[in-house]
Amino acid sequence: MAGEEETVSNKQVIFKGYVSGFPKETDMYLTTTSTKLKVPEGSKAVLVKNLYLSCDPYLRFRMSNIPSEDPEFSPFQPGSPIYGFVVAKVVDSGHPDFKKGDLVWGVNGWEEYSLITEPERLFKIPHTDVPLSYYTGLLGMPGVTAYFGLTDICSPKEGERVYVSAASGAVGQLVGQFAKWMGCYVVGSAGSKQKVELLKNKFGFDEAFNYKEEHDWNAALKRYFPEGIDIYYENVGGKMLDAVLPNMRAHGRIAACGMISQYNLQQPEGVHNLATIILKRLRIQGFIAFDYFSQYSRLLDFVVPYIREGKITYVEDITEGIENAPAALIGLFSGRNVGKQVVAIAHE
Amino acid sequence: MAGEEETVSNKQVIFKGYVSGFPKETDMYLTTTSTKLKVPEGSKAVLVKNLYLSCDPYLRFRMSNIPSEDPEFSPFQPGSPIYGFVVAKVVDSGHPDFKKGDLVWGVNGWEEYSLITEPERLFKIPHTDVPLSYYTGLLGMPGVTAYFGLTDICSPKEGERVYVSAASGAVGQLVGQFAKWMGCYVVGSAGSKQKVELLKNKFGFDEAFNYKEEHDWNAALKRYFPEGIDIYYENVGGKMLDAVLPNMRAHGRIAACGMISQYNLQQPEGVHNLATIILKRLRIQGFIAFDYFSQYSRLLDFVVPYIREGKITYVEDITEGIENAPAALIGLFSGRNVGKQVVAIAHE
Repeated sequence: MAGEEETVSNKQVIFKGYVSGFPKETDMYLTTTSTKLKVPEGSKAVLVKNLYLSCDPYLRFRMSNIPSEDPEFSPFQPGSPIYGFVVAKVVDSGHPDFKKGDLVWGVNGWEEYSLITEPERLFKIPHTDVPLSYYTGLLGMPGVTAYFGLTDICSPKEGERVYVSAASGAVGQLVGQFAKWMGCYVVGSAGSKQKVELLKNKFGFDEAFNYKEEHDWNAALKRYFPEGIDIYYENVGGKMLDAVLPNMRAHGRIAACGMISQYNLQQPEGVHNLATIILKRLRIQGFIAFDYFSQYSRLLDFVVPYIREGKITYVEDITEGIENAPAALIGLFSGRNVGKQVVAIAHE
Repeated sequence: MAGEEETVSNKQVIFKGYVSGFPKETDMYLTTTSTKLKVPEGSKAVLVKNLYLSCDPYLRFRMSNIPSEDPEFSPFQPGSPIYGFVVAKVVDSGHPDFKKGDLVWGVNGWEEYSLITEPERLFKIPHTDVPLSYYTGLLGMPGVTAYFGLTDICSPKEGERVYVSAASGAVGQLVGQFAKWMGCYVVGSAGSKQKVELLKNKFGFDEAFNYKEEHDWNAALKRYFPEGIDIYYENVGGKMLDAVLPNMRAHGRIAACGMISQYNLQQPEGVHNLATIILKRLRIQGFIAFDYFSQYSRLLDFVVPYIREGKITYVEDITEGIENAPAALIGLFSGRNVGKQVVAIAHE
């Protein structure tokens, strides 16, 4: 009987315990609880139905028991749900800024329904003429990462040479397209033939290579950048960074939003070529998307017109069903996904 | 017989051949040639008598056979003199901007007399009420390095926490004093008890430690920076950088003008903690003083008043005699010098 006090079952993806090395599906488990579809009387909370879960490499940080100054990176609580970016629909609201039917995105538990006590931290979804799942990618955190990392940190100029690692992923595919619009020469690397095809034929990269087939990354970079690299958009770290450094041009810029090759190592790889930054006057800058969320509207203003004109391509790898979320998340670390990894758990 | 055509003997420090690993005194040798004290008829060259030679760690780059885009870092020619910063006095001039008796500093051969065919690259010495040797240090390339690295790259704000490695050296002692004037808390490290005393008692660092007596640099940094480091002025690289990275505060800045620990290694050490730059949003920027020479007057405007008021301390380690120049240069790499290493080869 559907009524205001309707209670529904609520599947959740629970974090089992702290991880060292590569995470496994069994570091998470599914459980089913029940939830009332109503916010408590007098509360300013919002009750949402989650539609899409976003699988992002940074979640690996939260699976380790390493304290962080940033709440966004603080360790998960064993026995509680995984928290990540989601797209959701408001089912009930005690908050004046949200009403039933509103679509939102933000950090939330991996579960079918969530009671959100601080809805101020959610973004309302302003444009619904684009796929809703884009708010986990192109129009969500990865979009913010790609746009502000490239523009604010690397300041690309026409004709500059840009290298993107993990280039077919949620962020890399955007960096490449944005840099092309800005008149740059863009080369990407990825880990399969299929992904390399995507880079060249779908995303419009000038060149692309499969890093798993190149024995000598230094030689590969020299082949594609005989005059050197002005901008490296760093998603990988470790040995890849070491190969890039000697191939940078003077006054080059490296934006680092991720080093996925390092997250699962007990002892991170050493980067040996750092002294290069002196003679070449390089700047390496780390950043996180959260710092740019206050400027989110800049991303929308920039990118929504391109979407509407069909000028941007965004490839998603959508897995159906909350029960497949653990495998989808784990797959990121072996590069199993092709494009942005999303889990669809409900269709409005 | 002193006349316009006077010919004098001219001792030179000659570069023997390319070096791998630590340089040795025997990688250089002294020779004596002769020089006329007159520029060739019709030439725009300048003939100078060299007074002070500057021993700088960057010269190690030029002792390796590694091509460089920068002429300042290109390999020395075996059989030709070492080239480095010198302070000199004009003996004869065919150039309208220079006249006999002018004092200059710039890059020049390590020899008693030099014929300089591109005198446009020399700086004329504007203030002679300060020790002339300062133009190899405080008022020369190391001063430019300290001032622009600290101000332009690190933008220190009052109350920020600054760590300086190799802190009693030509650059480090200045960085510490400049940062103190800007209201920062400043800690330095150096390699002997005597140097640590200098840092605390003479240069006014808030704290200092002997890195050779600390088994755990991470623990030492935690002791002096319980709340973390905002600015690291990097002179050392390698293991020191690895210890610093986890001790940086969010939005910290690292200016890298040198990594002296790495120059003599066949295979540079790996830096393992680079992923820290992401979560802490760190910026690491390499730079070289040469890029700031066009703004040299800013250094003078900033620092000369402090010298005249006796508010700055600059410790030099002056070796007498051109025959001792090879040992003085080599000593840099074992930290034998106390303060800026200079070789006095003539007193006007």
